[in-house]
Amino acid sequence: MFGGWRPEALRADTGQDAWLRYAPLETAAKAKYASLPASVVVLGHSPVLRTAQEEMIRGVRGMMAKTLRAEKGVAERAIVLGTLAAMHAAGYSLKAPKLEGDGFWLTTGQIQGIDCLIVASTSDLGVLYGVFALLSKIARDQTFSSLDEVQQPYALIRWVEQWDNLNGTIERGYAGPSIFFENGDVRADLRRVGQYARLLASIGVNGCTINNVNADPRIIDDSFLPQLARIANEFRPWGVRLAVSVDLSSPKVIGGLDSFDPVDPRVIEWWRAKVSKIYQQIPDFGGFVVKADSEGRPGPSSYGRTPADAATVIARALKPHGGLLLYRAFAYDHHLDWRNPKNDRARAAYDIFHPLDGQFDDNVIIQIKYGPIDFQAREPVSPLLGRLERTNEGIELQITQEYTGQQRHLCFLPTMWKEILDFDLHVSGNKTPVKDLVAGKVFHRPTGALVGVANVGLDANWLGHPLAMANLYGFGRLAWDPNLSGEAVAEEWTRLAFGNDPLVVKTITDMQRASWYVYESYTGPLGAQTLTDILGSHYGPGIESSERNGWGQWHRADHDGIGMDRTVATGTGYTGQYPPAIQNRYESVRATPDELLLFFHHVPYTYLLHSGKTVIQHIYDSHYDGAEEAADFVRQWKSLQHHVDEERYAAVLARLEYQAGHAIVWRDAICNWFFRTSGIRDAKGRVDHHPHRIEAETMQLQGYGSIEVHPWENASGGEGIECVTPSGCTATLRFDRPAGWYEIDVQYFDQNNGESKFRVFVGNQQVDEWIANDHFPATKPSGDSSTRRRIPGLALRPGDEIRVQGIPDGEEHAPLDYIEVRASPAER
Amino acid sequence: MFGGWRPEALRADTGQDAWLRYAPLETAAKAKYASLPASVVVLGHSPVLRTAQEEMIRGVRGMMAKTLRAEKGVAERAIVLGTLAAMHAAGYSLKAPKLEGDGFWLTTGQIQGIDCLIVASTSDLGVLYGVFALLSKIARDQTFSSLDEVQQPYALIRWVEQWDNLNGTIERGYAGPSIFFENGDVRADLRRVGQYARLLASIGVNGCTINNVNADPRIIDDSFLPQLARIANEFRPWGVRLAVSVDLSSPKVIGGLDSFDPVDPRVIEWWRAKVSKIYQQIPDFGGFVVKADSEGRPGPSSYGRTPADAATVIARALKPHGGLLLYRAFAYDHHLDWRNPKNDRARAAYDIFHPLDGQFDDNVIIQIKYGPIDFQAREPVSPLLGRLERTNEGIELQITQEYTGQQRHLCFLPTMWKEILDFDLHVSGNKTPVKDLVAGKVFHRPTGALVGVANVGLDANWLGHPLAMANLYGFGRLAWDPNLSGEAVAEEWTRLAFGNDPLVVKTITDMQRASWYVYESYTGPLGAQTLTDILGSHYGPGIESSERNGWGQWHRADHDGIGMDRTVATGTGYTGQYPPAIQNRYESVRATPDELLLFFHHVPYTYLLHSGKTVIQHIYDSHYDGAEEAADFVRQWKSLQHHVDEERYAAVLARLEYQAGHAIVWRDAICNWFFRTSGIRDAKGRVDHHPHRIEAETMQLQGYGSIEVHPWENASGGEGIECVTPSGCTATLRFDRPAGWYEIDVQYFDQNNGESKFRVFVGNQQVDEWIANDHFPATKPSGDSSTRRRIPGLALRPGDEIRVQGIPDGEEHAPLDYIEVRASPAER
Repeated sequence: MFGGWRPEALRADTGQDAWLRYAPLETAAKAKYASLPASVVVLGHSPVLRTAQEEMIRGVRGMMAKTLRAEKGVAERAIVLGTLAAMHAAGYSLKAPKLEGDGFWLTTGQIQGIDCLIVASTSDLGVLYGVFALLSKIARDQTFSSLDEVQQPYALIRWVEQWDNLNGTIERGYAGPSIFFENGDVRADLRRVGQYARLLASIGVNGCTINNVNADPRIIDDSFLPQLARIANEFRPWGVRLAVSVDLSSPKVIGGLDSFDPVDPRVIEWWRAKVSKIYQQIPDFGGFVVKADSEGRPGPSSYGRTPADAATVIARALKPHGGLLLYRAFAYDHHLDWRNPKNDRARAAYDIFHPLDGQFDDNVIIQIKYGPIDFQAREPVSPLLGRLERTNEGIELQITQEYTGQQRHLCFLPTMWKEILDFDLHVSGNKTPVKDLVAGKVFHRPTGALVGVANVGLDANWLGHPLAMANLYGFGRLAWDPNLSGEAVAEEWTRLAFGNDPLVVKTITDMQRASWYVYESYTGPLGAQTLTDILGSHYGPGIESSERNGWGQWHRADHDGIGMDRTVATGTGYTGQYPPAIQNRYESVRATPDELLLFFHHVPYTYLLHSGKTVIQHIYDSHYDGAEEAADFVRQWKSLQHHVDEERYAAVLARLEYQAGHAIVWRDAICNWFFRTSGIRDAKGRVDHHPHRIEAETMQLQGYGSIEVHPWENASGGEGIECVTPSGCTATLRFDRPAGWYEIDVQYFDQNNGESKFRVFVGNQQVDEWIANDHFPATKPSGDSSTRRRIPGLALRPGDEIRVQGIPDGEEHAPLDYIEVRASPAER
Repeated sequence: MFGGWRPEALRADTGQDAWLRYAPLETAAKAKYASLPASVVVLGHSPVLRTAQEEMIRGVRGMMAKTLRAEKGVAERAIVLGTLAAMHAAGYSLKAPKLEGDGFWLTTGQIQGIDCLIVASTSDLGVLYGVFALLSKIARDQTFSSLDEVQQPYALIRWVEQWDNLNGTIERGYAGPSIFFENGDVRADLRRVGQYARLLASIGVNGCTINNVNADPRIIDDSFLPQLARIANEFRPWGVRLAVSVDLSSPKVIGGLDSFDPVDPRVIEWWRAKVSKIYQQIPDFGGFVVKADSEGRPGPSSYGRTPADAATVIARALKPHGGLLLYRAFAYDHHLDWRNPKNDRARAAYDIFHPLDGQFDDNVIIQIKYGPIDFQAREPVSPLLGRLERTNEGIELQITQEYTGQQRHLCFLPTMWKEILDFDLHVSGNKTPVKDLVAGKVFHRPTGALVGVANVGLDANWLGHPLAMANLYGFGRLAWDPNLSGEAVAEEWTRLAFGNDPLVVKTITDMQRASWYVYESYTGPLGAQTLTDILGSHYGPGIESSERNGWGQWHRADHDGIGMDRTVATGTGYTGQYPPAIQNRYESVRATPDELLLFFHHVPYTYLLHSGKTVIQHIYDSHYDGAEEAADFVRQWKSLQHHVDEERYAAVLARLEYQAGHAIVWRDAICNWFFRTSGIRDAKGRVDHHPHRIEAETMQLQGYGSIEVHPWENASGGEGIECVTPSGCTATLRFDRPAGWYEIDVQYFDQNNGESKFRVFVGNQQVDEWIANDHFPATKPSGDSSTRRRIPGLALRPGDEIRVQGIPDGEEHAPLDYIEVRASPAER
């Protein structure tokens, strides 16, 4: 609680404190808060109240170098923390506004004749949330001289989920191993878990599911429960409830029964007894998450039972203890026949769960992904969100950037989440935005939920990309208050994570706000989904991986056109799942907004968008524009040199430079594929025309040999070169353009199964060298491993020999795609 | 040469590149140099010329992201590097100024009709120096549109010495183990050695002695020579000559002879053959340094020979190969009878070496410490510097802060060195400043020398304190050009190490310039030398350690007065060693400047200084002022937050805060000692009166017991407390002052033989905790280990119980001296 031992104070910012840095305020700001009371009074006793008081002290200590007095009663001006009930019991008469659940009230007022700053709530946890809100105001240099503010959480359940495996890996985690598990057990050192709980509490997140939805049944084995209890102990002071994902076959796999049929009395008893044992050890246990009958997971269908049958047995075991069951609606047949144009994976959640509306107990929440497919960069809102009237529902968002750049690319997701949460489904004639539906406000459900899949890891900065933590922050803030704007969230986070320098605040906020649109524009066009490799990495381009298989992420692009016809009239009928107003919009090709056109309709490439462009030209333009904008992020970030700490400056710069290069890989793959498929040229003459590009396979090669890259569009010209000579190979070209300043981009492949070395020479002069030692999700030359190295500021002369030397390592054969030689920006 | 592999580029500044960071220029500065030629032509072949060309490319690449073309001839606008001879041979006609030695000429001019930027010298090494000068101008944002500048080194020999032991330790090294040796051998990894040579070359240092002057004879054992050759290989490309310290008894100890008598023909032959073998392996070997007949080292006196005899045999062995012998004048009897008021260690160098003037060969240099004692914070200039007319001499300065704070305290030594180098000894009626004497200019000696004892270590930032590298930089710069001002040197270094932000440049330059005066003012007064523990650490206060022993660093302070009478009239006669003008000044107590008064005269404490103060009041005032100024460094540094990188910001802040606390330890030890010794009160009532101090031994103790600290003045009240109960002890007091914001300073002892833990409570509230895990040179409570922990911003109320808990570890018994409770600055 004291900012650590002295040696730790010497470290540069590693990102571990994320938005809770409590960095020393500037002198002027410090003066603004000089009249802050010297005492902090907490009324009552509980681990959470103790945390609230300690956090208040810690925050003021960090920002103002003052240690508030921890007091039990008001004897002088004080910051008073407590529930309204405790204030009343202490005889402090306050005219309190209406407060519910974990909402809080920040105000100034007299207590026993003494001016105080009051943080009140109906719950201990609400008091903690109020403390974080107050500290955030100070850190963001906000004035609160006449403070009188009430905040209420929008939805009761604001949980994050982690897809951690017991062996310590994380499915779709991009920032190191699990903070919870290691080698099949809970880690001995749980300090990061406590730190994580603190971060979660600070944004109002009140639960965390710690293991993969593809659950290992052992997670609730009796022998494992004491280990879970250790994690719950770390969560408890922060009001974060522990939950786990369970496997429906557990009664059979770890319970020794010969069945897991949810209506079998032995199964019912098994769940009852199991849950009871859990609560003996973890009295505030949050509940379970279930993924069943989906992507190969066991489920009630094995016994001809419905999800409602399965949910009921578990929910009733949880009910006496106050536990919740989050039952995922992400269930679909992944062996769909792609030849049948009526088949549509997008229909699955609605088709399965809508008929069951009303059959779930009140402590069950149907957890629905925001779109009908799977966390694509752009999807329409899931129709199921508007159609459960007698069942609790929640929305599942994804903080970890599975399909949105895996924390290698900047992609601020609250912008997307805001579009989804604000989307009006027109369910009942009134305004029924998704945020109201998932909060239970529309159908007056007792429980609503916003769930985010976070997947933080042991990397010091939790998510890998130093700017990606804005997504975790933004999830919590929007779950608490979805009426906040994306801009406000981005600015709040920037101030907390980087301070209040106006240039820094504006630049980072602007970059974050633009980033999702930029990512979308160089990956998936017009609602055709993220055109990534859906069968493997979910990272780089993989256009045809969606097609001709049972996974159902089809975009149906062929020689003539692209898009899934999901209309009632001629397609899969999916649009019929929406309420009439929305159905009408999506049923009509003209009424469908451009950005979702291809999700709902199959159109020819020459179809004219509302923008006035043809579909094909839009594909070309958006990918070129997007790659340009990604490059511009680098320029914007560079303006912050000396305005942010050197460590994060360098780390972010490296990621943005990589992103700018990978955006070109995406651009070229998609443009080339659509050009070859459609046969329609880019009106602006850019596609398949790279005047400054020299294919490696056309260079003069020594040792290097050409290879085909699959799919072909992921390498320029479909080919690259590789070197199997241990001492290395070279690729050479003669420069024949006018003398001047140039930059050379070397496009190479950086696999995760070797660390090749590269050197670049102009004549006999070595001008660069690097090791391809990053860990992209690729063991061969591909759109995942394709990487750009920029060598700026080279004075080239006609006749110069440019030579790239590659030295292979392991299974990585120093593979090269092409080089580009362009005039340096100043002289272009 | 390319700024490293990509992962290294992500690191925060560790200080490894010191003043050669080549950080990217701001955009405006980059524009200023946009017209820099695109090529760099080097004329000729040599390792040093290759280095020069590579460094030019590296620097421009780092600062401007441009890679200059390495060319062999001028075909277009170019930066042309080469000797005048090579330029002439290439047919480039230049009207060159007169250049000598390794001087260089930076100019612009036409070569074969093409505008070029020219770096010319008479030597390859001079070309390298010119390249560093050019790059430094760019890094410091200097204009050089009409460049025409000649620089000549002032003295031929500009060497650093390292006191590294073969086991890897460094005598008087404060920044980690040796970069050269480990476990008795040269280290396998010599990368740091090459980096060091680059730093040295960049400031014109052309030689480096790598081992302790208390030399292990094995350094020149035949079996060791191949290891030395490896180091020389790292030095060679940077024009740094390798030298070693040798032990005069080597012919006996490693040579198998039964004598090392310098006139014994077998000894003469042994040295001849040994040197010959060295040069076979290291053709550019620099030579030897000798410390003999000093502090227990063997020497010619064993055989009744003189230093000249000893020097001659070695010099003649070196002569045919061009090697030099640096013979240290630091020779004295350390068993002087302190009872004899005529004895005076200060006389030794002159008494021994002056009679031998003219008896040394031309490749011998007498290496003379700047003062007659030993690197004290203030000494008069050594008289021997002015009295060797027929012998080469050099001055020995100390970069490692042995007596000046050991890189724990900020102490910019070039300020002192400038006073010394500019000091006019009036040897011949003309102006004869020390800089001219040691450069050989006064008596027209062939060789002059400036030698600096550097003692860099394996710590990433070389010297420990991030601001201490200004001393190494400043040594090189002043050795090259002693006419530079200290301010200019400080500013140059600041710009190179921290960039050109005006606030940063001004603040750090000002701090550096003040720092030596500040250090002197809270340590040693009026030329009485650094009043440190001269028998051990040479670090914290140890006033009486100088007295009543044979080491001769006496200040003769007693009840009545203080100072060494070194006059001819009534004292040791030391003043008689100076030329008449200087002798007259120091012989007269009135003519002696205040700052050296006590070095030359014994005076009563009531003696009135030129300043109008009594000696005793000066002692009190200067120590209080000095401690205040040390505290002010913290304030100044804090103004740079967000202007320098966070890592160095935090590291420097921690050292300055420590220094501010240790300055108080110094202040109190010296003031209390002189108060008790003289019985004269401080006219300002500060000494021995600390209204806000509570002695630990007077607090309510549980488990803690009092201990005496020796010498008594190094702990407040002569006592402290310690705890031998493993579970810990407490010391408690009741606060009885008005309510308000306070800060508490806890004065504790941080030894190097344990890591005690401390916690501080106000009532039941823990307000701070820390571990005493620094490594001060102390195994007991002392002036070396005394350390201050400041706890700012505490709201205290009358009746509060303040409790310090100490938990011992190892041999460190959580020792405490006192605590101070003061109103917080804003409310004072």
